[in-house]
This record gives sequence, structure tokens and C-alpha cells, in this order.
Amino acid sequence: MPTLIKNAIVITLDAEMAVHDRGWLRIEGDRIKAVGAGDPPLDFAAEVIDADGDIIMPGMVNPHCHMAMSLFRGLGEDVDDRLFRYILPIERKFVTAEMVRTGSRLAALELIQGGVTTVADMYYFETEVGRVVDEAGLRGVVGQTLADFQPPDHASFDEGFERVEELVAEFSGHDRVTPSIAPHAPYSTGVPVMARVAQWAADHPDVPVQMHLAEMESELDWCAKNHALRPVEVVELAGLLRKGLIAAHCLLVDEADIAALARNGVGVAHNARSNGKAGRGIAPIEAMRKAGIPVGIATDGAMSGNTLDLFSQFAPVSIFQKLLGHSRKPMPAAEVIRMATIEGARVLGLDARIGSLEPGKQADLIRIDLSAPRLHPIYDIYSMLVFAAIASDVRDVMVAGRWLMRERKVLSLERKKVLRDALQIASALKAEMTAIDAGR
Amino acid sequence: MPTLIKNAIVITLDAEMAVHDRGWLRIEGDRIKAVGAGDPPLDFAAEVIDADGDIIMPGMVNPHCHMAMSLFRGLGEDVDDRLFRYILPIERKFVTAEMVRTGSRLAALELIQGGVTTVADMYYFETEVGRVVDEAGLRGVVGQTLADFQPPDHASFDEGFERVEELVAEFSGHDRVTPSIAPHAPYSTGVPVMARVAQWAADHPDVPVQMHLAEMESELDWCAKNHALRPVEVVELAGLLRKGLIAAHCLLVDEADIAALARNGVGVAHNARSNGKAGRGIAPIEAMRKAGIPVGIATDGAMSGNTLDLFSQFAPVSIFQKLLGHSRKPMPAAEVIRMATIEGARVLGLDARIGSLEPGKQADLIRIDLSAPRLHPIYDIYSMLVFAAIASDVRDVMVAGRWLMRERKVLSLERKKVLRDALQIASALKAEMTAIDAGR
Repeated sequence: MPTLIKNAIVITLDAEMAVHDRGWLRIEGDRIKAVGAGDPPLDFAAEVIDADGDIIMPGMVNPHCHMAMSLFRGLGEDVDDRLFRYILPIERKFVTAEMVRTGSRLAALELIQGGVTTVADMYYFETEVGRVVDEAGLRGVVGQTLADFQPPDHASFDEGFERVEELVAEFSGHDRVTPSIAPHAPYSTGVPVMARVAQWAADHPDVPVQMHLAEMESELDWCAKNHALRPVEVVELAGLLRKGLIAAHCLLVDEADIAALARNGVGVAHNARSNGKAGRGIAPIEAMRKAGIPVGIATDGAMSGNTLDLFSQFAPVSIFQKLLGHSRKPMPAAEVIRMATIEGARVLGLDARIGSLEPGKQADLIRIDLSAPRLHPIYDIYSMLVFAAIASDVRDVMVAGRWLMRERKVLSLERKKVLRDALQIASALKAEMTAIDAGR
Repeated sequence: MPTLIKNAIVITLDAEMAVHDRGWLRIEGDRIKAVGAGDPPLDFAAEVIDADGDIIMPGMVNPHCHMAMSLFRGLGEDVDDRLFRYILPIERKFVTAEMVRTGSRLAALELIQGGVTTVADMYYFETEVGRVVDEAGLRGVVGQTLADFQPPDHASFDEGFERVEELVAEFSGHDRVTPSIAPHAPYSTGVPVMARVAQWAADHPDVPVQMHLAEMESELDWCAKNHALRPVEVVELAGLLRKGLIAAHCLLVDEADIAALARNGVGVAHNARSNGKAGRGIAPIEAMRKAGIPVGIATDGAMSGNTLDLFSQFAPVSIFQKLLGHSRKPMPAAEVIRMATIEGARVLGLDARIGSLEPGKQADLIRIDLSAPRLHPIYDIYSMLVFAAIASDVRDVMVAGRWLMRERKVLSLERKKVLRDALQIASALKAEMTAIDAGR
């Protein structure tokens, strides 16, 4: 049965950035059939939902996440060099298919409750992530990670490629889950493996490539020492700087790097809170966007940024650019919401299907409840979304025409069971952290 | 009837930073009678509340706010020099006793729902603010502002002092509302008036002084031009750099300024989002705290920072210092929560009465609902509060032993009426902004 949502503030994010202060939306199957202003045409064949003046906007796109790491949320805070001290040892010991399933489910709950409808993920046992994204009803680009530091699911790159092939075999042609290949980073794969990925990707034009890029000083050092190049140049040398590459971070980039990213059609996933919390700095996303690079707003894993919703990123994303520019002008709120929706979709190569509310597009949308006093008055709807709204203001979530959440209740996952399973794994992790800190 | 809250994670914020993973709290009248771990002693005379494993912690302190400006939330975004272009003309035209009452009520709703129990306010018609703080059941330090730019409630400083005297007369001896005098800033009062305030304050030792200090480049220029000094030095010259001064911002301070603030016993209200959103920079609060200056976490008015709860400030407060220090180490989460509670209370001179959960202190406390999946797992309770919790996780709020909110419903104000009144004023403001932008 078609669905008709009426009496909503419809924020379309279409090319004209149309906002219908009192608008409606008609959904048939998994798609948006029509969008309009004022009263909808009479339609006795549809289920009619009165949005009561709330906002209907596109579901948000989180283009860089490690869903399973929600189990590590808040682990090892305030310590430099966590990657080698905590993350890698813990991952080797604790990351199993079951752990990835449980952590991804916890993440899926949070993503849905925070209004994210599409997530790009990079991790291990990624087939499990794809299955969780599928069961949760989300849309995802799920990337099997390849790395040389004895990751938990492959002892060699050959084995890693086997994991990728399994993932592609399972999700090829899936409507919502797009398999992806994810070389971890330049320093953790090396040029020969990145070249192999580039060749493999050329043979699989529908499979997006994700990687961490230009994130850390130590990465700059590795690239300088081994290739006398900068990270972006090393990736270009390997032939991997290509259209469809989803590059996470791009924090330590100079003008030439930005030009190379733009020239090669790379999309960037910006992780403001994660980068800032590491004390690493502020990615020059204003400059990147001016150069024509699509930039999405991402959360990174919960061990880095603690949250997976985009509302918690909005103020940092905008404020960081204002600090860089020493002015109020950079990164106005409407641009932030654009990045969180249609531009994030472009980063993932999905902008023809999602990211805006337009006829023919997938019905991925969220309803924002405007009852909280802290959201009012509203002089600029985008400013309200960026600087005042929080994750809990998301009331309903729909992906591909299916309601995943109604009135804050997630319908596609069992909250209590997921939480119970997660806390069981967390208690074992607590003991391990204590052991690491005791120097054992 | 006494209240006994049991089965709670009690975060005391006492000198030892004690946290009782399963604790209890006994409240008699407006005070905390006892705090303990484990099962409470049997008590048939008390109303027993089972917190069901939720957090009980001190109510938060917001030491710099302009409550009435919640009506200007999100007005004039992304424009430099808003103060003279928008704020002052709008204030002259729209700020009346009625507007201050309505805006302060809207702010009170948001403060309570965000877990703030004590607020320091600076504005005009401040007697109205004091009355709203009182009716809402909040605790407040309400400062009548003095300024030379034709503010809406006094045509001369003599008249301004009359407003102050009225305020002090009405609230002197009030248990929760502390009257305060608030010279706007060095450039908007000048040395002779600041000296007059200093003298007045010496005669009124119980009346705290609040002011904006070292916030803007133009303020530095004014101080340099008129006195060949820096802002902190100008205030010292006027004799106003004194114990009990609540200095908001202190963004543009150097080492000598910090030493002067510390030497004179000044408290600082840090406004991370407001300063950052203006592109002005990051206040060196790590250095200030090392020098012994108490620093609280403040929101500024909603026209500057958009929100009045402290959760929306926590990540910026911590991340900004990590960015300044280029490391994960600065400003650990426990320090952020300390600033939001006991240290903020110290800034306001109220730390003997509030800011921690200890026997004899006022029963100002909040309950944090831990049911949201996005809060779990919890490896470090302070990290969870700083980086994962949001305003809507506050479930119940008590001030001086009285519940102001239960299960998210504010009991002391009529939400619908307040919102209706606020939106009526907002629609007139919208028209005025359009007129200003049209260059009339």
C-alpha cells in the first residue's frame, strides 16, 4: 500500500534546495513517487500519515564507520598512540565473527536512532557486517579491510582477497548492501598491495574502494621514508587514486594533494570529532569542496569519536571551519546538511538513488520531532538542524519504503537482546584493558 | 517527607571524586542528608525511589548565559560583526520586560531539560529574569547589565545603577536567586564606570560581579587605543579584577593576563561553542586551570551558541584543548565534568552549597537515564557523559529538594504556553530581520 506523508516541513535537498514549509510526499514500494507543497491530491488508496508540522528530510549518510567497534566505545581515552598500544592487540584477541555481528547490531541501533540510513563500513569479517546491515534494514557500503598487521580474519593478503571475494559473492546485486574492498591505509598495505587492489577494482567497476588516507603524522613519515612522497602521492603511485575511492580523513593534505584528489574524482569522508579528539587537527574541507571534491560527514568508529549519529558531528564540522577561517562565514548550516545527505551520497557513488527527496529516488527519509523547546524559535531550518537538534529528535526512520523506527522504537532489531549481548563482550574487554594497563 | 534514592550510580564530584557504582542518597528538606554505597539503611519514613541503575549526579552549573536571548536562537548566522549589525538594534527595539520574561521562561525549560540547575545570567530587566529563575525553581546568579550603547532598560549609568539597586532589593537574602551587577565589557562601560562598579561591589560583598572580558579583537584594539593596555589590565586598572568577579570568555589572554586573573581570584566562564562559532579561537583553559583559576563551562546566549545545556559543550570543550595541545591527553573527561559541576560552582562562589553530592549540601541533582544503546558499553563513566550523552538523557531534575522535572516532564513551567508566547515574539523578530537585511 502506498504511503502519503502530509503536513510536513519537507526539506528536499534537491538541486534548488527546495523546502516546502507545508508539504507532502508520496511513497510507492521502495521509492518516492511524488513530492509537493500544500495539500496533497486526494488519495484514498494510500496510508495517510499526518506529520503534524514535523520535518521530513532525507535519511543521513555516514560515509566512514567501523560499526563493530561500537563495542570499544570510550576505551583507552586520553592516551596517545592508542592504535598500537590498545586497538591492534585487542582486535587480534577479541574480534571474531560473533563479536562483529554483536557490535554491528549495537551500531545499527544507534545509527537508526540517530537518523543515519546509509553507512559505509570498513572492518573485518565484513560479511557479518553486511548481514547485520541487511537485517537492520539499513543501506550500506560494507568494506572488507586488508592490512599487514595480523588482523583477526586474514593471515596474508591472499587470504584477505578471499574474504573480499566471499563478501562480493554474497552481496553482489543486493539492493541495499554494496560490497566494497578496503585497503586499510598506505602504511599498512604498501604500494604493491594497493596496486593489486587497483587492478582488482578495475575488474570490478561496481565495487567501491575505501581507505584511510592522510590521517596521521606517522603515516606522513612512512610515506616520506619509503617513497619520498606524501600519502596522497603514494596512493596515486599505486594507481589507486581513482573515481569511486572513498578516502577517510584527508586531514594532512596540502594544495597539491587537494588538486590530485579532485582531478582523480576521489570522495572524502570527513571525521571532525575523531580527528579533533586525537589532537590531530582540522581537515581543510572548505578548500577541498571549493576544488570540487565531494565531502561527507562521518563519525569514524565509536572508539575514536564515541557516537555514530551525525548530529553530534554538525557543530564541530561547522565550528572547526570557522576557526580555521577566523570568521563566522565558513561552512554555513545549509552546507553542513548538504554534506550529511546528498553530498555524502555522492561520496559513496549513490547520489542517483539516495540523498534527496525527489521522485524516483529511494524512500530513505527521517522525521524530526519539533516538540522540544530547545529547537525554537526557528529562523533558519538548517541552523536549527546543525546547532540545536540532537539525535533523540529523530522520531521515525524509513529506508527503501520500510519503517525501521516509529516513535523512537526500532522495529528491525531487538534492543534488549542486542544490548545484553554487547555488555557481555564488554565485560571481557574490560578485564583485558586492565591486563594491558598492568603491563602484562 | 525525606526522599531516599537507591540503586543508582552516584557520581559525587566530592574531593576524592568518589563514584558509588551502586549507591544511595538521602534528602531531607532542601539538603542532602547522607550519601552511601550499597544498600541504604532501612528507612520507613522516607519516600523511596529506585533509580534502576541510572546515574545520579550533581545538577550542572552554567556560569554565563543570556536567558532571554533564547528568543534570538539562530538569528543572524554566519555573519561577522553581528553585535552592531543585528544584536544591538534588535535589542533596542524588542527587549522589554515582557520579552525578557518570555525568553527567560523558554530558556528555563531548556536548562531544566538539559540538566542545568544553576545558571548565571547577564541581561536587561534582570529583575524579570530573577523572577523566572525563582518560579522555575532553578538556582541563579542574575546580573543586571550596565552598558553605554543605549541598552533597552537604562539611558544612563545612573539609571543602570537604579536597576541594580531594585534587583538587589528584591532578591537580597533569597535562597536560590543571587542578585549580581554586570558591567557589560571594558569597551562598553569604560574605566570610570568600572571603577564605580568596583567601589559599589566593595560595599556589597555578597553581590557577585559578572562581565565579558577579553572576548574580541575589537576589544583588544579599544583597550590598546584608549589605555595602551590589554583588556585584563584595563579591568585591573579600574580596580575590578577582584575575588568574586565572574569573567566570561577570557579568550584573548596571554601569560601575564592569566597570572593577573589567578592572582586576583577571578573565576572564568568558558564559552567554547560560542567562541568557536564566531571564529574567534580557543580559550587557553588548560593553562588557566594550571594557574589555579576556576573555570566553568558556559553556553553564552542562544544567539551565539544556540543551546543552553552543557552536554552540547562537552565535546567541543575537550576537543578544543586536545587540538591546542596536539595530543589526546589534555582535558580528560573527568575534568570536563568537574568543570560542569563543582568548579562551575566555585566560579560563582557557590561551591560550599552546591556542585557535589555531599551531606549538608543543597539537594541539586539530576538523574541520567542509561537506556539508550548509544551510551553503551561504559568503560569510563565520565567519558560516557562527555562524549556520548546528550541533553535528552536527563530524566529527572531536583533543585533544593524539589523535583523540577520527572520523566522529562518539566513540572514548574507550562511548556505549551511558554512556547506559544515565544513563537509570537519570534514572528515579529523575523519581520525585523528581513527589514534590516533589506537595508532599511
